[in-house]
Amino acid sequence: MSFLDTRRKKQLQICIQKLGLSSIEKFDWETLDLALTHPTISKKDNYQQLEFIGDSVIRLVAAEILLENYPNELVGEFAAIRSILVSDNTLAEFAEQYGLERYLLMTKGVAQDKIGKVSWLADTFEALLGALYLNRQNMSLIRPWLDPLLISKAAEIKADPARQNYKDALQEWSQSQYKLLPKYQVVQYEGNKDHHQRFFAEVWVKNNNLGSGYGCSKKVAEQAAAKNAFFSFIHKEKYEYGQ
Amino acid sequence: MSFLDTRRKKQLQICIQKLGLSSIEKFDWETLDLALTHPTISKKDNYQQLEFIGDSVIRLVAAEILLENYPNELVGEFAAIRSILVSDNTLAEFAEQYGLERYLLMTKGVAQDKIGKVSWLADTFEALLGALYLNRQNMSLIRPWLDPLLISKAAEIKADPARQNYKDALQEWSQSQYKLLPKYQVVQYEGNKDHHQRFFAEVWVKNNNLGSGYGCSKKVAEQAAAKNAFFSFIHKEKYEYGQ
Repeated sequence: MSFLDTRRKKQLQICIQKLGLSSIEKFDWETLDLALTHPTISKKDNYQQLEFIGDSVIRLVAAEILLENYPNELVGEFAAIRSILVSDNTLAEFAEQYGLERYLLMTKGVAQDKIGKVSWLADTFEALLGALYLNRQNMSLIRPWLDPLLISKAAEIKADPARQNYKDALQEWSQSQYKLLPKYQVVQYEGNKDHHQRFFAEVWVKNNNLGSGYGCSKKVAEQAAAKNAFFSFIHKEKYEYGQ
Repeated sequence: MSFLDTRRKKQLQICIQKLGLSSIEKFDWETLDLALTHPTISKKDNYQQLEFIGDSVIRLVAAEILLENYPNELVGEFAAIRSILVSDNTLAEFAEQYGLERYLLMTKGVAQDKIGKVSWLADTFEALLGALYLNRQNMSLIRPWLDPLLISKAAEIKADPARQNYKDALQEWSQSQYKLLPKYQVVQYEGNKDHHQRFFAEVWVKNNNLGSGYGCSKKVAEQAAAKNAFFSFIHKEKYEYGQ
């Protein structure tokens, strides 16, 4: 890897400041540079190896957080919550909160790939964790800023009876109520002037349209429709009317 | 958790010495005690939470080891090797090398459960890693003794064309050669005077008995038979005769 140019170094410093790590010394900037380089930029020098490390780092930090905050919880519950905490959706959400996209070197094709965005944002986030871990061989550059995010997300997951999987929750409900599976109708349309594909989904059970939603993929639109149905209909029935 | 009695403390100290960690200060012995307590001894104070932590610890250490020792390897290869490194079989093997069984508090039923042994040995090993990690919030009590084991096992896996999954390797070969799946014949018999169930398996392809093996379960016996077939027949054909 070549030495970083001044502009890139500056960019990486801003990224680190965004994480609240203002005055870090003896920091390996070239590893951070790798963490923020998509494989389409370089087949050899990219974030893939760091992502492999970071994937274990986030699992370990999530396990620690859960044990510290819910010491009396069952391990099965930990595992269920952790699987959502370390999912691509959650990690992409964290990456977006820190605007990681702005620091990632990628080709124009990737930048415009809205459908794959959750995946490359999550990968980048894991790679960032990998780089920060390897810099210290411990979690000291990670936990100060990641803990609050994980704690708040864990609380949100625990409070959500559908466990953020509304399609599964809806299916369970419609099978128990009507012995029927929900049906999804998805239409694809030209979304905006960049011509990204957009999807609109409706969910139906027994000739009733229970909800609808939009998304950048078929799957995301269906989840959105299921979430809409869940909160406007089932959640009310189950939790507000006490059934 | 109550204070440890002198005998248990002594036992835990010997365990730590076995790992080569002779003079550790400020060590939380009660966490180690938990790591070496099976759930059948206490529903509340047992190794399960530490195993949850340790499961991520071993994945992270394995990732680091692979990156350090094979810096030019593809990430897909890392993932394949790591999945074997962190498997129950490998971890149980490590646990046996350190005789962890001697320090684990468990009911007689567990101690005699030879079929579940791989599973509870692996769980105990993960819990031990969890306890050592939490004691320092880093890998300093783990890597000094675990690195050599992982490095040597990783080299063994890399050198093994069947990747320690002989059933899959055999199936692949018999399908490509004969368009047939291997057939296993397993018989169960009374193994020894403790009346543990034992299994004997033979593997057949096209009316040829290619190998046989023993095991504490049907699955283990089949793997043993496949391994026997692999090395006595296919491996020779593929690698010694250059086909």
